[in-house]
Amino acid sequence: MSRFGNIGKGVEELTTPCFLVDLEKVKTNCYKMQENCNMYGLKLRAQTKTHKTVQGCILQTGGTKKGLVCSTLDEAEYYADAGFEDILYGYPLIPFHLPRVAALVKRLAEFHVMVDSHTAVESLLNTLPPKGHKWSAFLKVDCGGAREGVWWESDKGIEMAEALNKSPNIKFMGLYVHCGNSYVKNVEETRDESIDRVEDFVSRLEKRGVTCPTVGIGSTPTCRQPGPKMKKLTELHPGNYAFLDVQQNTLGSCTLEEIAGCVATRVIGHYPHRNQMLIDCGFTGLTKQGFGNMKTGYGVFKDNPNLSLCKMTQEIGTVEDLSGKLDFGKYPIGAILYILPWHSCATAAMYPVYYVLGKDERVAEEWKPTRGW
Amino acid sequence: MSRFGNIGKGVEELTTPCFLVDLEKVKTNCYKMQENCNMYGLKLRAQTKTHKTVQGCILQTGGTKKGLVCSTLDEAEYYADAGFEDILYGYPLIPFHLPRVAALVKRLAEFHVMVDSHTAVESLLNTLPPKGHKWSAFLKVDCGGAREGVWWESDKGIEMAEALNKSPNIKFMGLYVHCGNSYVKNVEETRDESIDRVEDFVSRLEKRGVTCPTVGIGSTPTCRQPGPKMKKLTELHPGNYAFLDVQQNTLGSCTLEEIAGCVATRVIGHYPHRNQMLIDCGFTGLTKQGFGNMKTGYGVFKDNPNLSLCKMTQEIGTVEDLSGKLDFGKYPIGAILYILPWHSCATAAMYPVYYVLGKDERVAEEWKPTRGW
Repeated sequence: MSRFGNIGKGVEELTTPCFLVDLEKVKTNCYKMQENCNMYGLKLRAQTKTHKTVQGCILQTGGTKKGLVCSTLDEAEYYADAGFEDILYGYPLIPFHLPRVAALVKRLAEFHVMVDSHTAVESLLNTLPPKGHKWSAFLKVDCGGAREGVWWESDKGIEMAEALNKSPNIKFMGLYVHCGNSYVKNVEETRDESIDRVEDFVSRLEKRGVTCPTVGIGSTPTCRQPGPKMKKLTELHPGNYAFLDVQQNTLGSCTLEEIAGCVATRVIGHYPHRNQMLIDCGFTGLTKQGFGNMKTGYGVFKDNPNLSLCKMTQEIGTVEDLSGKLDFGKYPIGAILYILPWHSCATAAMYPVYYVLGKDERVAEEWKPTRGW
Repeated sequence: MSRFGNIGKGVEELTTPCFLVDLEKVKTNCYKMQENCNMYGLKLRAQTKTHKTVQGCILQTGGTKKGLVCSTLDEAEYYADAGFEDILYGYPLIPFHLPRVAALVKRLAEFHVMVDSHTAVESLLNTLPPKGHKWSAFLKVDCGGAREGVWWESDKGIEMAEALNKSPNIKFMGLYVHCGNSYVKNVEETRDESIDRVEDFVSRLEKRGVTCPTVGIGSTPTCRQPGPKMKKLTELHPGNYAFLDVQQNTLGSCTLEEIAGCVATRVIGHYPHRNQMLIDCGFTGLTKQGFGNMKTGYGVFKDNPNLSLCKMTQEIGTVEDLSGKLDFGKYPIGAILYILPWHSCATAAMYPVYYVLGKDERVAEEWKPTRGW
């Protein structure tokens, strides 16, 4: 079966494993996030890393094709080629990437970078932007996520913002915060704590005469569970919300029914002497992420909560029944099962194409994600 | 930077993360495995799933382009397009795949399938092979690996072999065993136990008048640590040996120096307040496999055994020094580090291209792996 050219087919006609996207659910997830932003008068700057597709970006931007944040230059170039504007390369800038950044600054009306080091700030100060353009930079601030970003309490970040703001060749865009700690701590508390901390940073900057046109926080858990303090911000930049996954369900971001992406797999063998069956989804079809977090192993079987994906090799998954006794008659060789992934960003990245199902459960669209760096 | 067209470049010119292959090491690993087979008069049927490239297959087959086993039909079609012969689709056959199998049987002088279920056997018995051709089938036998395969003690497998052997439309190739348990048990014991068990199966078949032209075992640990009992076999079919990895090192298959594949990554930020630095290799550049098996986290840093990759998000890795005190001066922003993967099959699968370095440490070849199913 060719990878593309499957429009109109039913899942039973598709080679497995394959990644299925429920078009109506993605649309609903994108609509709800826009509603959350509207509720507090915020701009949505959609993070695209979960799907890395043009079609997904169109749905996330409500068709405007404006206002994205991505994690790789490969993505930024892919979306620029597709006519998107106002793209933030939301990744710590290093001097090595300046030539590709300059090319994007030149071809787009709005292309922004993110900095969190003196090295990055100096590379912008010491490199002339393309003629007739300015560099446009966000400062990444760490408000507890302990990933990238300048620590909110430190004055290093204040100095960087001042330096960026002072330069005639640089447009200082403001502050970018990712609440990565919302994946391990109470979501509401993390959300409000991050807002308080970035607000503190903003006021310290104002005392130095530096204003922040943009102040935003991200993470799907905090943005799927918004709160009034968000009124103090100007934008939100979640990403996973377009597909959602079992991890988001455990964090209270969604129900299992709202998850828009899943893996279709076929039963390939019965092994009654050990009460197991095998499916054609190994770690190249799902990844091994999430094991230990679900009582059903590496994923959750849609409509079959009794099944556990207890082991995975490269191309094969081992399935047991939590009761210990597998009903082989219910799962004949060739039968199709559907797995909800623990982490949709990781699982989607394993596929060269997504089959997007319409209301009739047939392939309505084929989305080709970009990959690489 | 374009993904291809980087021949002659040094690593410092390449976008990171990227997957590097040491050409001399791959050649040596392939040569040594052929030597192991020659020592016991065995045929090498190279498993290709680790690299999924034409160039890797050429090295594994010593340039003959004959004698492969792969885990996906996508691979079989890719190698057939590249002129390879005698390819085994080493995966439990299901009726859904018969049309693609028939197309391969038609275009190749030797294309084999692997069966381990009555469903698969019946699908071959009840489907006419392409005119002028026969189906060619191996029986997969489970000698303790507890993955796919008929359990060696059961008579189910005997009946399947008899049925295949009896049919005028099927060429019964013999038995295929994978010693997957060599990854969790003593390698030599597992190797010899598997050989004893498959030999028992062979003699039970002979009593029923069924001879096995081919009897082979696989797994890189058992084939990198061969033993005299292997004389009883006709072929070996390991795969990971072409690249090797940290897991193989812990199993005694190789030294860290023999590992032919690694990930190059750059330092992107310093965070002294938490004694950490970040690198541009997240789980899309390495996968999260192996965590908990290495004292250095998700991988082993070449030439920097003190560094630990303690956390990974999609595009970023967090690095600490095992001593607790990171020497930031030694790892400036932009500095390149090299990570040996726990599982090279999983890591290689994350890359759209491998940069193959020659003796001069420059890109001598660019290998494009196939992917999908």
